[in-house]
Order: sequence, then structure tokens, then C-alpha cells
Amino acid sequence: MSISKKTSEFAIRRLSLYLRILEHLGRDGERTVSSEQLAVRSGTTAAQVRKDLSLFGSFGKRGLGYGVAELALRIRKILGLDRRWRVALVGVGRIGSALIEYGGFRERGYDIVAILDVDPSKIGERWADLTVHDICEFEDIVRKQGVEIVIIAVPAEAVPAVMDRVTGAGVRGILNFAPTTLRVPESVTVKDVNMVIELEALSFALSQEAGEE
Amino acid sequence: MSISKKTSEFAIRRLSLYLRILEHLGRDGERTVSSEQLAVRSGTTAAQVRKDLSLFGSFGKRGLGYGVAELALRIRKILGLDRRWRVALVGVGRIGSALIEYGGFRERGYDIVAILDVDPSKIGERWADLTVHDICEFEDIVRKQGVEIVIIAVPAEAVPAVMDRVTGAGVRGILNFAPTTLRVPESVTVKDVNMVIELEALSFALSQEAGEE
Repeated sequence: MSISKKTSEFAIRRLSLYLRILEHLGRDGERTVSSEQLAVRSGTTAAQVRKDLSLFGSFGKRGLGYGVAELALRIRKILGLDRRWRVALVGVGRIGSALIEYGGFRERGYDIVAILDVDPSKIGERWADLTVHDICEFEDIVRKQGVEIVIIAVPAEAVPAVMDRVTGAGVRGILNFAPTTLRVPESVTVKDVNMVIELEALSFALSQEAGEE
Repeated sequence: MSISKKTSEFAIRRLSLYLRILEHLGRDGERTVSSEQLAVRSGTTAAQVRKDLSLFGSFGKRGLGYGVAELALRIRKILGLDRRWRVALVGVGRIGSALIEYGGFRERGYDIVAILDVDPSKIGERWADLTVHDICEFEDIVRKQGVEIVIIAVPAEAVPAVMDRVTGAGVRGILNFAPTTLRVPESVTVKDVNMVIELEALSFALSQEAGEE
């Protein structure tokens, strides 16, 4: 189970990429797109594109390609973007506060409905239209606000205490910005935002070029 | 060329993941690891692990597995982590300043050696042991400091002006935090840190579970 769940992680990442390409094509007035076009723009193969899309039911017509709007709609539904999600953010430090003001989440349907911190000096602070709550109120807020996803943006040392509350409150989705690996029950899904991994991909590319010269 | 470059993006991401697993095993005192063990821990298949590693030369011994320390060393070399990288950061806003104070970059060999901004009110500010420079000095700083990688952490509207300078100065690696797609010459590699894509993977997982119930 956990294997198939993780294997498809890369397929899901590609779906997100296809969606961005389709939205781009839509804005340019394109009506249809072939798996070859999607492949070139996403840096994969047409066979991979067809395989990814067939995982969720096949929608292409041989020789006609995919309808841009239809496929975008279908992928949005697959990715859970056909509805809005209620998100709580824990940790209103530098990264946390940047996330509150970041418009990209709301645009995609993720609404930050509550913000919390452990630091007494931050509790009561206003950020946009939200007030920082004491982490002690976490369970209450999750229940009253119907929180489904929690963003963790606390320092590594604060993670264990926060995680006990988050998993205890029955939250099943976590976006982790803390520089540590979270240990969670099987029923909880965690996605890490790991900036160092992106840098590693960069230094890999630069090392390869240096080797070619 | 650009296709094979991008196809391997997922392989590179898995190498980063294998490296973390190997480091973990090393700390636990493990000497060898099989492709099956690496596969289970990274959520892929043993065949995929062997294929990924064989891309860069095969180091496993049939029946004996891989040496943990040797394989970690080899992957570090592949990812360009056997040396240090000189990094400039452009944009000392909320995300930028969080990145300056983030210890994970230096730990992996990425040294932020210069910080720059377009905002006159920020120029001259001190952050850790660095002073914010005027973006006008960018070319000079890149040359004098030997900058190889640039982190872009400016608002979307500031991106075009910054990009002209970055590509003009001959920088070939960019880590992009700006919420926009960068248009760069073929010779430049860009990695985007896209937090929304991680959220999409989360809402996908949560939607699937809801569907199964």
C-alpha cells in the first residue's frame, strides 16, 4: 500500500505540471493538445504522458489529442482542486508569516483559516484578517473550523510537541516546512517542502555541464 | 537534449532521497543495504533503485548489496555535494531573510556569500555576517565572489529586471522562489520551489482516501 502510494508521487507531480501547461495553453486560446506536445513541454515522453493519464481513466482520442479545457478540469478533480480546503498554519515566524501573505494558496483553493503559535509574545498578533492563537487551542480550532490540512512552520525543536497535537486532533494532511522528518501514523499524509533537494538538483546539473566541457 | 535532461529530474530527486536514507542508515551503524531495502524506504521498486544507480555506474554486488558509506559518497559526488557552492541571494524580504538564517543550505555545502535587493531602504542592512547590496552591483559581486548559483526571492513584478541581470552576468543555476515561471536561456538551469504543488499532492491523497471510504 505505502509503496503504490509513494510510487505514484512522481505521477502526481507530473499531473500538477500537466495542469499548469494546460492552463497556459488555455490562456493562449488552444483547444486541443497531443500527448507529444504535453510530453515536450513537461520534459517527459508521450508514452509516459499517456500512461499517467490512463491511471485515472483515459480521455484522449487517437489522432485528435486531448481537449485542453476537459483535461484541465479532469486533472483538477483528480488533484482535489474542484473544492476548497481549510488549512491551519502552525508557527508564525519568518516562513510562516510569508506563507500567510502568499497569494498562491488561496488562488488554488487552499484557505488559511487559522494561525497558531507556541510563543506567548506572538499570540494575539494580527496577520491579514487572522489572529494568532495559542497552540493550546489547536484541537478546538480544528473542530470548530473544520481544518483538514495543517502547515507546520515551526523550528525543529518545536516539532515533537506540535506533532502530538496535530495527529491527536485527527488531521490527516500535513505540509511540512520544518527542517526535520516527521514521524506520523500511517493514516496521515505528509509532504515536505525541502529546499535543499532543489539545490541538489541544481548542483547536479551544473556538475554535469562542467564534466561535459 | 532538454528531454533527457528533464526525464532524469525524477531520478535525481530519488538520488537525493536515497542519500538521506543512506545517511540515516549510516548513523544507525548499518554497513550495507540492499536495493530492496532502499526501495521500501524510498517508496519505489528494487528494479527502479537498480536502474537509477546504474545510470551513474553500477556499484552493487549481487547478494551483498551496496556499501552504505561508499554509495553515499558516490551519490554526494553525483549531486555535486563533494565540493562547496557559492550562492547569491536576491530579495531580502520575508522569504529571503528566512533563507539567510536557514542552516540547511550551509550544512549541505551551499554558502550564501552575497545578498542583494532592489529596495533602497534595505540596502546596507546587516543579516548574519552579510550586508545587503544594491542589485546594481550584481555583475561586480558575481565576478568578485565567484557566484555560481543565485536564489531569487523577489516579488513576481520584480522578476524581469532581476532576470536580465542574472542571465547577463553568466550565472547558470537559479533556485526560484518567485511565484512565476522564469524564462531563461538554454544554458541556464532553473529549479522552482513550488509550495502549491506539494499542497496539490496532499489534497490528491486526501481526496483518494475520502473516495475509498
